[in-house]
Amino acid sequence: MSFVDKVKYDANGLVPAIVQDYNDGEVLMLAYMNKASLQATLDSKRATFWSRSRQKFWIKGESSGNIQEVKGLFYDCDIDTILVKVIQHGGAACHEGYRSCFFTQVLEDGTEQVIGERVFDPNQVYKK
Amino acid sequence: MSFVDKVKYDANGLVPAIVQDYNDGEVLMLAYMNKASLQATLDSKRATFWSRSRQKFWIKGESSGNIQEVKGLFYDCDIDTILVKVIQHGGAACHEGYRSCFFTQVLEDGTEQVIGERVFDPNQVYKK
Repeated sequence: MSFVDKVKYDANGLVPAIVQDYNDGEVLMLAYMNKASLQATLDSKRATFWSRSRQKFWIKGESSGNIQEVKGLFYDCDIDTILVKVIQHGGAACHEGYRSCFFTQVLEDGTEQVIGERVFDPNQVYKK
Repeated sequence: MSFVDKVKYDANGLVPAIVQDYNDGEVLMLAYMNKASLQATLDSKRATFWSRSRQKFWIKGESSGNIQEVKGLFYDCDIDTILVKVIQHGGAACHEGYRSCFFTQVLEDGTEQVIGERVFDPNQVYKK
């Protein structure tokens, strides 16, 4: 059985995919793939997802130019999570202009701190 | 509003949590937290989840002894994914005895390869 057929998709036909920087291991984002976008990721070597908010096939970077070049693809022991290691073109994965989507840390006292710096201005990149 | 109240839980009241090794950045696993387990993770500094298969509150390592000591907790731009950086006690996160649950790589030709080595024998640890 091919890999994409073995994956345990959820009730919506989706599987979470963790995106990690191939070079330094930083976790960049989490998004969701359906079977077609998982197959496209394998075939094209560009991280491709299903956008739950826009309900459409989503080649990461198609708007911003910040594509994710896939260097390795892994699945977990339950075959219900994907890990892709990528080279992040353009320096930032997050649509808010940060390198990683995980730019907010919750500190021990419950306060929060932005730990990332903006790589780009979203208003410029997405021409809102 | 406190952090645990801001998180966007899914229809089942859960949020995916990526667990990453604090020291070397390896992605160890993905599991799910509900509000109570997220609060417990913050308070106890031990990664705590909601087990979907067992439908119960789950302190990671309570059976195996391989607890995850939380060194940092982050959330993403959509507030719908958690990232925890941990010190993995016992050397392995995966219930199958591997350090990371992502021990299988899908290669370019579609074949698969186990890339991890077993740290422990699950039959010994879980006394099946």
